[in-house]
Amino acid sequence: MNGAQSLIRTLVDAGVDVCFSNPGTSEMHFVAALDTAPEMRGVLGLAEGVVTGAADGYARIAGKPAATLLHLGPGLGNGLANLHNARRANTPVVNVIGDHATYHKRYDAPLESDIEAVAGSLNGWVRRSESTADVGADAAAAVAAAQDAPGRVATLILPADISWGDGGRPCPPIPPRTAKPVNEATVKSVAEVLRTGEPVALLLGGDACRETGLRAASRIAEATGAKPFIETFPGRLERGAGVPAIERLGYLAEQVAYQLDGTRHVIVAGTRPPVSFFAYPGKASDLVPEGAQVHTLAAVEDDVVGALEDLAELVAAGTEPVLAQPQRPELPSGELTAQNWVQVIGALLPEQAIISDEANTSGLLLPGATAGAPRHDVLTLTGGAIGQGMPVATGAAIAAPDRPVINLESDGSALYTISALWTQARENLNVTTVILNNRAYAILRMELQRVGAEGSGPKAKSLLDLSPPELDFVKISEGLGVPATRATTAEELAEQFSRALAEPGPHLIDAAIPPLL
Amino acid sequence: MNGAQSLIRTLVDAGVDVCFSNPGTSEMHFVAALDTAPEMRGVLGLAEGVVTGAADGYARIAGKPAATLLHLGPGLGNGLANLHNARRANTPVVNVIGDHATYHKRYDAPLESDIEAVAGSLNGWVRRSESTADVGADAAAAVAAAQDAPGRVATLILPADISWGDGGRPCPPIPPRTAKPVNEATVKSVAEVLRTGEPVALLLGGDACRETGLRAASRIAEATGAKPFIETFPGRLERGAGVPAIERLGYLAEQVAYQLDGTRHVIVAGTRPPVSFFAYPGKASDLVPEGAQVHTLAAVEDDVVGALEDLAELVAAGTEPVLAQPQRPELPSGELTAQNWVQVIGALLPEQAIISDEANTSGLLLPGATAGAPRHDVLTLTGGAIGQGMPVATGAAIAAPDRPVINLESDGSALYTISALWTQARENLNVTTVILNNRAYAILRMELQRVGAEGSGPKAKSLLDLSPPELDFVKISEGLGVPATRATTAEELAEQFSRALAEPGPHLIDAAIPPLL
Repeated sequence: MNGAQSLIRTLVDAGVDVCFSNPGTSEMHFVAALDTAPEMRGVLGLAEGVVTGAADGYARIAGKPAATLLHLGPGLGNGLANLHNARRANTPVVNVIGDHATYHKRYDAPLESDIEAVAGSLNGWVRRSESTADVGADAAAAVAAAQDAPGRVATLILPADISWGDGGRPCPPIPPRTAKPVNEATVKSVAEVLRTGEPVALLLGGDACRETGLRAASRIAEATGAKPFIETFPGRLERGAGVPAIERLGYLAEQVAYQLDGTRHVIVAGTRPPVSFFAYPGKASDLVPEGAQVHTLAAVEDDVVGALEDLAELVAAGTEPVLAQPQRPELPSGELTAQNWVQVIGALLPEQAIISDEANTSGLLLPGATAGAPRHDVLTLTGGAIGQGMPVATGAAIAAPDRPVINLESDGSALYTISALWTQARENLNVTTVILNNRAYAILRMELQRVGAEGSGPKAKSLLDLSPPELDFVKISEGLGVPATRATTAEELAEQFSRALAEPGPHLIDAAIPPLL
Repeated sequence: MNGAQSLIRTLVDAGVDVCFSNPGTSEMHFVAALDTAPEMRGVLGLAEGVVTGAADGYARIAGKPAATLLHLGPGLGNGLANLHNARRANTPVVNVIGDHATYHKRYDAPLESDIEAVAGSLNGWVRRSESTADVGADAAAAVAAAQDAPGRVATLILPADISWGDGGRPCPPIPPRTAKPVNEATVKSVAEVLRTGEPVALLLGGDACRETGLRAASRIAEATGAKPFIETFPGRLERGAGVPAIERLGYLAEQVAYQLDGTRHVIVAGTRPPVSFFAYPGKASDLVPEGAQVHTLAAVEDDVVGALEDLAELVAAGTEPVLAQPQRPELPSGELTAQNWVQVIGALLPEQAIISDEANTSGLLLPGATAGAPRHDVLTLTGGAIGQGMPVATGAAIAAPDRPVINLESDGSALYTISALWTQARENLNVTTVILNNRAYAILRMELQRVGAEGSGPKAKSLLDLSPPELDFVKISEGLGVPATRATTAEELAEQFSRALAEPGPHLIDAAIPPLL
């Protein structure tokens, strides 16, 4: 058994049975070894940003990591932005990065580069396999490292000769470090804060955004008057009818200031105290209201759900959570707007949907329109590196083939990783992509004003415009193998969205929507 | 004057007047400042790989750097692969990477990451501006560093508050370090090698691949019997009728072994001794024939052209170079093949063309077909990170608006940076893209065999196939704003290629070509 075969066997034995791949020559033995492990599914992406984003989306839904297969330093570079998003989502990912043979590195061949330096920037786990006999153990360690609570990006660098060498030994799974229980004293001290009667905000992140955590948070809020919030960009948020509807903190510092106005205590549970996404001249970076105290119920690596349930027992025994009631908007009519397209989605969202949300400015009104829709998951842009939505949708659909995946995607963001559509077509995934096509980097138009940039004129404006030429997403999508239609009215969007959901396989709708702002 | 304004003014004063851009919020003051400097042209790319590859192509033709504008660490990550190619081409590039405000970094906001670590992997020059007053000097230093012989990637990290702060001071240009003259003793000792009468290979790289260097090399070869070769992947190679036709070293180690068979001395001039692109089991990495001696006439940072001319004076006084004669293949007919499509290009290549060559396996026969075509430049895949051809073509066309740019592009490679087409359309660039569409990563099919990977089956094969679904490059191109046609016969390719060249603006031809191998 060669190194590559021992690697794949170890991954499969540890439950990692999907490998999103964009291989090159140095990964050919890994590619060949796929045929020795029937359990391992190889999924090709035409660019590494698709591969890494798909691994992120997969793990958010599957609850376990996928592997990626990347080609040396440039392959990692191309995939880095979506690994950054995965890192910020605390998603477990196992990167396998092929490298030159050990004896070849000193020749500084054209593709030689410092893979460790780039992988290290992800603040995760990085190891280079030093011998074929160790590859199995390295792989088991990588899977465990990826799954150590709360989850991270683990990168295994696999030199070509270590991969093709004989003497590979599969290694049994290594148990990952589980989430740390929160001690009773901490829970009690937070309970004391809640009993002061002073205004409290309860900020939820990580696993607290799943149903069990949300129910506990809702009970606490009901019993104590604390105001619960979801962190701005949760990795995975469960919501919809039957789940407590808890507001997300806004993207804009001004929104957060409004949401937290008057708060005396901020309790953080599975996340960190709120900070501004960007700095703005003369505005605060720290969004904890002045004079408010921060109390950590559970850090990101702690068992936040257990802590919330313990806290609920202390302060909300006997109190029931408040669940969102089934309620959908009416189907709107007329020209599409930033206001009415979300109503179409809210009116028609299918059962058990997964929403990959990269709608950005166009999606500001989405949460209200879908709050009472059937229960669904929302996967958000955790790290702020755009180009995430389509790959994440792709990976989510691989993880949950029986659930409809809805990718709400800004035009500007779509173009970074558009070839994800091809992977959706090849794998016949049930992904419905709605392009919110406002022909601009609308968020940057807003930001240009917000940062107080003066003196900007036509050249600045031009760098924020996506037209001319107009992007024709119908043609692009069809060219990549995904059937597509264009909607300019609410009726058209409703009809096309319904049809896309009813037919198996991927679809794309190019929805012409004027900028909200 | 704010920091951004002083930066742009300094760039312009140093001759850097094109900025390929994909900005975000942290770069908004830079974007606004563009309107204060009429000389600076901002060119939008829809993905950072387009931005960095265009900067590479621009500088290869313009002979001076362009700037890039990138958004924090993820923006740099997305652009890293083509910066790797630029690094391997010794192309001068000035990256401007926006970062969070200095006081914002400690909050570890979602887009925070280690930019220095990633930029440092390029082995170039990296600096972070520490104060607004210093931005001008930092920018002048960056431009000089980029142009220090032989050229490199310089990265200036610009925190948002340093950019928007008042007190910017433009800085006059700083002269870069010029190429080091080669001393007389070195030239004389190489002349002695040439006089031994033993078989000598003269390996040319860098500026030696331009006309003056090639003429000197040709004279040396004529007078001494030395066999000249161009390095495998030159950044810019001048060739065609009237220029000495010098063979390139092959991509495959087996080719190089054949080319250098019997050589006793390898003289390197502006490059390094030949090494295998990848390692293969049981094959050598070092491609210098066993027993042959290596002599360095000029290292990569030396004045290689001056050294070649000095050497020619010593060993080839009075000898004329041998120039390629005008000669074109006949226009072929019938179904397109890997053999005849290159004849169409050779027959119709216009005067003063620039070829951005990412044809990979499909282009193996191209050099022969174009050797006697009108004088042209060829820009090659220097670092082996595919996804370079379309962005490099884009940048080259910005640098030389009066020259026709021909992008010969493999289907697999095209999909990494396909949105370069949109920038070509927006800027109305004279780029004709020919997609060599063989529906596979054909080079990897070959490499799978070459690395001796055994046991591969349908899953391995599937990871090297680009179909199903079939990519429809005509639709993709039209969707991105570039008119496109499909050619399946040599006659169609000839007709469409001629028409594309005759009309201003970009065009794409999807050429269906069976795999060569």
